[in-house]
Amino acid sequence: MTDLTYKELSQKYAHLTRNVNEEFINIHPIQRGGLLTPEAFKALIAFGDGYSLCDNCLKGRIDKIENPPVVEFLRDMANFLNIDTVMLTGAARDSKRIAMQVLAKKYPNRKTVVIDSLAHYTTYLAVEINNLKVREVPNSGKPVYSIDPNDYESVINDVLKEEGELPLLVLLTHIDYKYGNYNDPKPVGKICQDFGVPFLLNAAYSGGTLPIDCKNDLIDFIACSGHKSMAASGPIGILGFKEDFADEVMATSRIQGDVSSKSFPRKICSVLGCPPVYGAPLITLMASFPTIVKRTQKEQVEEESKKANHVIDQISKIKGIKVLGKLPKIHPLTNLKTESFAEIAVNHPRKGFFLREEFKDRGIIGILPGISKEIKYSTYGLTWEQIKHLSNAFLEIAEKYNLA
Amino acid sequence: MTDLTYKELSQKYAHLTRNVNEEFINIHPIQRGGLLTPEAFKALIAFGDGYSLCDNCLKGRIDKIENPPVVEFLRDMANFLNIDTVMLTGAARDSKRIAMQVLAKKYPNRKTVVIDSLAHYTTYLAVEINNLKVREVPNSGKPVYSIDPNDYESVINDVLKEEGELPLLVLLTHIDYKYGNYNDPKPVGKICQDFGVPFLLNAAYSGGTLPIDCKNDLIDFIACSGHKSMAASGPIGILGFKEDFADEVMATSRIQGDVSSKSFPRKICSVLGCPPVYGAPLITLMASFPTIVKRTQKEQVEEESKKANHVIDQISKIKGIKVLGKLPKIHPLTNLKTESFAEIAVNHPRKGFFLREEFKDRGIIGILPGISKEIKYSTYGLTWEQIKHLSNAFLEIAEKYNLA
Repeated sequence: MTDLTYKELSQKYAHLTRNVNEEFINIHPIQRGGLLTPEAFKALIAFGDGYSLCDNCLKGRIDKIENPPVVEFLRDMANFLNIDTVMLTGAARDSKRIAMQVLAKKYPNRKTVVIDSLAHYTTYLAVEINNLKVREVPNSGKPVYSIDPNDYESVINDVLKEEGELPLLVLLTHIDYKYGNYNDPKPVGKICQDFGVPFLLNAAYSGGTLPIDCKNDLIDFIACSGHKSMAASGPIGILGFKEDFADEVMATSRIQGDVSSKSFPRKICSVLGCPPVYGAPLITLMASFPTIVKRTQKEQVEEESKKANHVIDQISKIKGIKVLGKLPKIHPLTNLKTESFAEIAVNHPRKGFFLREEFKDRGIIGILPGISKEIKYSTYGLTWEQIKHLSNAFLEIAEKYNLA
Repeated sequence: MTDLTYKELSQKYAHLTRNVNEEFINIHPIQRGGLLTPEAFKALIAFGDGYSLCDNCLKGRIDKIENPPVVEFLRDMANFLNIDTVMLTGAARDSKRIAMQVLAKKYPNRKTVVIDSLAHYTTYLAVEINNLKVREVPNSGKPVYSIDPNDYESVINDVLKEEGELPLLVLLTHIDYKYGNYNDPKPVGKICQDFGVPFLLNAAYSGGTLPIDCKNDLIDFIACSGHKSMAASGPIGILGFKEDFADEVMATSRIQGDVSSKSFPRKICSVLGCPPVYGAPLITLMASFPTIVKRTQKEQVEEESKKANHVIDQISKIKGIKVLGKLPKIHPLTNLKTESFAEIAVNHPRKGFFLREEFKDRGIIGILPGISKEIKYSTYGLTWEQIKHLSNAFLEIAEKYNLA
């Protein structure tokens, strides 16, 4: 019962416009991989309405729809990731939550999830919401922050010793959110296979930007994000899993009404019946899929790495700037320690905001406002011309403040 | 590692088009309330990319974003529903799941959720996934299927007697999915208040199409659906709740990394950090909000009921057709028992499909294929001209098969 009139509300919500990607080069680290392809944009317009994908739903499950070809798409996606089956989820975080939830039911005595210490916060929250414990595999610290896969073995052994039980799940972040470091899943997969512990790869930044081969890398579960790295409007996630876990992940409802006797034996428990991606999220993911397949092939992946490393080469001339994380970059998510910019911020009238504004003046956006000690950006999908403009902007700003 | 080439995949996924609402009058019962407003459609185009709402995220939480005005919108939405606070969720089903989850933690001895026997399947699944038990309040059965609010009292008493504990939660479906029956929340709210049991209203079909006043109706939790009834692209849900439950619903993370000491004290546990509605879902909901407020006011609501009842008046002349559920309709979701059509289907070359095809030939779509014993549709938001066309189509088909 709001007191505001339609007219007042209309004025208030009339300006929901956005020109970020038209007017600027957007280097926001979480946005580059989720920019729509032209095909996805067309599909978005066609399927914008709520439940628009459900026109021809015959079985009460979006993953069973044949028109548009969802069933076929899921097969193609599983094939692409080289894993037995994929299910749609609300987001990669949901994929992780669901994997832990079904495993916790399968192995009620196992209480610990072993993760890399650069895991995304949603990995920790998925552990927490499932009432599980977390054990981190350390990283090498400043400035490279690398994970040694062999450390997984000792952490698993520690858990086994202390708890008398194996970990419930081992998780590796394929590309971490902070330094954009690439971790090879295979050595961790091998350790997990030897222990007989399920292995989940969090591919939120990599599924859709880098090649992934779950069978080769001994991956049991994979979590991907449509809106983060698969050029989908989202929110939409993928949970890929080995056939061994199909019964648990796809477990259907067993509850029954005590009066009505109603039951829902076709509905999947873990997603509350039907994966929640009824229109724009799924159709844009499907429309972008051919491009996703193409852009994760060797040639294009190498080109994207080359662009990221080109920027780094150029800006390494700047005084007081240091790239954190492994070099050369494989994934273009980049973290810079920018001590010299931080020093300038101290006496700058705009304080920490100055850097974002300098970039904005040069047509570049996506750097977090107010932070000048550390910058995170991604060059994913920028053209060479934009890459050069970005490098030049860095150098120009450095020159302006005598850091060249 | 799919074997298909980009060209093959492009051809396969090139035809993700949809003209349902351009070429037909769409009476699909779950789609009418989720059709985008023109304002939402514009916003969808502007915010189509993944994470497009996060340009100006300063606190790592979408519900804290000030530009676009998410914070203000959440206040306006709470005001509109007349409840203390609202949080964004993935869907109404998630809102129910989360309410049960936080209550189960607060009252570990209470194990039963009391629901109406016409509750949506996702209500049952939310109970199941939380490892709780369900107790149904009966309905009056054929043909009206009404719920007597007083029965809530006896079912709550039964639970109390058998389990020595109150139910964890009482749930009422405001408009049920099957017959579109309207249930007044207030008498149930009063009973819950007397027992001291939290009361949740499932407003998936009503929040956005009917007026709702949570304080007046003694509602503790409300679940709404953006894509079902608030003209949003979705998926997006609303969980409204009384201040009393704010600490539980909005509980922030307490987990800590054992090596890194990382913690996430700003992230909300129940939604795995940040409500998962990063672009199109939320912006379309915001853009449609002024219309939502307007269309739930008395005049427009009465007009929608009038349209639904007009169709019913017209088609009640047809032999062997009976409206199930309460009459006159308040919400336009309508269920017809169509015995005479079912008899025709037996000998029709197209069997049960004939009815959908007859309607399709008359420019009307949205009736489930293959079912002719029962039809569900919604007239929500159709123009009077479309309403008349729909009534005439029914009568024409009846005449063609000698049922007039």
